[in-house]
Amino acid sequence: MAEDMAPVRIGILGMGTVGQGTVRVLERNAEEITRRVGRELRVVHAAARNPARLEGLGLDARISSDPWAVVRDPEVDVIVEVMGGQEPALSLLLAAIAAGKHVVTANKALLAEHGNEIFAAAQAQGVMVAFEAAVAGAIPIIKAIREGLAGNRIQWLAGIINGTSNYILSQMFHAGWDFQQALAEAQRLGYAEADPGLDVDGGDAAHKITLMASIAFGIPVDFAHCHVEGIRALERTDVAYAADLGYRIKLLGIARRRADGVELRVHPTLIPHSHLLANVEGPFNAILVESDAAGQSLYYGRGAGGDPTASAVVADLVDVARTMTADPSNRVPHLAFQPDAMSALPLLPMAEVESAYYLRIHAHNRAGVLAQVATMLAEYEISIEALVQKETPEADSVPIVLLLHRCREGDLEQAIARMEALPVVVQPILRLRVESLAEG
Amino acid sequence: MAEDMAPVRIGILGMGTVGQGTVRVLERNAEEITRRVGRELRVVHAAARNPARLEGLGLDARISSDPWAVVRDPEVDVIVEVMGGQEPALSLLLAAIAAGKHVVTANKALLAEHGNEIFAAAQAQGVMVAFEAAVAGAIPIIKAIREGLAGNRIQWLAGIINGTSNYILSQMFHAGWDFQQALAEAQRLGYAEADPGLDVDGGDAAHKITLMASIAFGIPVDFAHCHVEGIRALERTDVAYAADLGYRIKLLGIARRRADGVELRVHPTLIPHSHLLANVEGPFNAILVESDAAGQSLYYGRGAGGDPTASAVVADLVDVARTMTADPSNRVPHLAFQPDAMSALPLLPMAEVESAYYLRIHAHNRAGVLAQVATMLAEYEISIEALVQKETPEADSVPIVLLLHRCREGDLEQAIARMEALPVVVQPILRLRVESLAEG
Repeated sequence: MAEDMAPVRIGILGMGTVGQGTVRVLERNAEEITRRVGRELRVVHAAARNPARLEGLGLDARISSDPWAVVRDPEVDVIVEVMGGQEPALSLLLAAIAAGKHVVTANKALLAEHGNEIFAAAQAQGVMVAFEAAVAGAIPIIKAIREGLAGNRIQWLAGIINGTSNYILSQMFHAGWDFQQALAEAQRLGYAEADPGLDVDGGDAAHKITLMASIAFGIPVDFAHCHVEGIRALERTDVAYAADLGYRIKLLGIARRRADGVELRVHPTLIPHSHLLANVEGPFNAILVESDAAGQSLYYGRGAGGDPTASAVVADLVDVARTMTADPSNRVPHLAFQPDAMSALPLLPMAEVESAYYLRIHAHNRAGVLAQVATMLAEYEISIEALVQKETPEADSVPIVLLLHRCREGDLEQAIARMEALPVVVQPILRLRVESLAEG
Repeated sequence: MAEDMAPVRIGILGMGTVGQGTVRVLERNAEEITRRVGRELRVVHAAARNPARLEGLGLDARISSDPWAVVRDPEVDVIVEVMGGQEPALSLLLAAIAAGKHVVTANKALLAEHGNEIFAAAQAQGVMVAFEAAVAGAIPIIKAIREGLAGNRIQWLAGIINGTSNYILSQMFHAGWDFQQALAEAQRLGYAEADPGLDVDGGDAAHKITLMASIAFGIPVDFAHCHVEGIRALERTDVAYAADLGYRIKLLGIARRRADGVELRVHPTLIPHSHLLANVEGPFNAILVESDAAGQSLYYGRGAGGDPTASAVVADLVDVARTMTADPSNRVPHLAFQPDAMSALPLLPMAEVESAYYLRIHAHNRAGVLAQVATMLAEYEISIEALVQKETPEADSVPIVLLLHRCREGDLEQAIARMEALPVVVQPILRLRVESLAEG
């Protein structure tokens, strides 16, 4: 039976790291994949800006420098979009969908910003847009949330989903480096791009947590309302103070469903040092999911790179191959929930978020500073859980580090504004969130 | 569209912890599940030895004390088998399959021993036998291996897949308890059965790793050739010596593909203390997978219990609901590979396994013992990586703990037999395997 089925004919847009990885994995594991699927996955057409890149790959396919030639190729059943960016990727995908082609994409930025439009077009055409490769590289987290936990009410997700930032934070902790030194090393190792903004300022993680929130809770994709903070403001002393208090600092994407809405946020976060997520090091990714029946489950692996991302691309191709002839109403919906059964839960503003907090306050070295700070917090009914005050007698300002119990962020922001107005406070206050990630 | 599709009609065999959990989760999350699937999952018939158990569940279904009544019920589309054991479960499943019903089962023992027969029958009838719930409770590991990593050549798996044993080993490490004390506490907490043999002697983990090996490598299910050792022989001093050497002891199921065959084994294993698997504590499960494109990925969660196992049962029901009307040749094959494309790789005897080792040797307190031991190992070209010899001057025998570099187990067994014959060696030698679990 297996030998009789026609090959799935694939067109690839973009032959960078992931495109080359995909060709390499499909070639290397062709026999293993065909033994699983019962039919061949065959690349028949590839678009590359620089066709010279394809020379060592042994790719037996049409090569075009124009991606439109691939999208318009009637011999292509499935488009693999691994070129990245917004345009022309958006127009190419919509044209492929309009032509009745299925799409596999690794483009998190595109889906986070235009996912609703893309998925609606695919739904109308009865084609699939698969995007396992857009989130957390090799980790099959889209499949886990959308299918593996399909019996659950998912309560929250928290993930280390940007390997560049995680590598930097690992080095700040283990090697005691400052941010700039760790970033330079990440760039030297190829973990960070020349322009690292999308990684270290949180945008890349925000794209991914936005997509995960949609499939976890059945809400439309809404990147514009995801709160994003990166890791540039962290000093190595923050990493050290956190360690003294029993915490590691990780850049987390967090999505939490509450009765009144969904929290969606990316920011550096203190988490207990013994937690599994705290021990995810270097360029690895991990996502922790809490849901009502499964309890906590965690998914860990390589978040980037040619072969790991290709692993997800090929898994999506296999899924597409299996269901391309099926009745579309029996397929897994793009956003896990049926399009006519999406949730209207709003994304909550940050003022409504509830969290515990870490504050670093630089104040003049005078008696009574702590009393003023504590009094101000008490006015907002925010209580202090722990305090670190390092003696630095020669300096004219001292850092005061506080851990605060859970409170409403809006209340804390008001208290911070008032503390920053105190004459004894000499710098903006650094405010980080603290999450126990405890099962509950 | 969603409202128009007929409900999936479910019959449940067994209303113990998992059966009740399944009914509870389907009821509690009915709306969420229907929003995902586009149709209702409805329990229409349940078999329970003790129907009184069902009273608090609010189950609106036929109740039978005879499981055959459920299997023969023409109104049932899918059988959920959560009664456990070999018979009558085997006959019931085969009858359900013969009647054209799909099956979802949590019965690892049954599948490990009769999987080939069951899957062949299902294949012939064009029905599905889904078994996510049979391995590692809530963790969607079957789906991850069979679908998420479908583009990979999987090289090995190593898993903590028995929560009872893991709880006991956690307590031996953290509380310094001996095996019997930890077992008694596990029984008090409900983590261990009155007869704990299947858990602590490794049989349960062996059922699970046998199934995972089949779907990872495309080999038939062959429980009879899985090597099984449990944790009863471990003393708390072994846990402490391992810690001194930088290791934790975990009961692992390991499956490794080599050019000449597959290693399939369950045994207590020393793993580096900083490894993520080493920090999986208490009743949790985790599986580490190494594959050629994805590299290492890890899956963690609750391995047992009513709700966590129900999470997997319901995920399987959702998959069945989505593909029950599809062309069977497009479904995910039971063992991940097409039935006509299975591998003929043999399971290797333990003598052929390669590993590093931990030895605990009790010897009379005399000069020259270590020299004799080292000489004997050297004759088999086995080299010593580390040594711990605790001074216990008042005792007439001393424990010598050795870490050995990788070698062939057959060679080591010969060396051990000769060492045990030495007059100075006073007890059987304890031999544990050591795995680095390093990527590469």
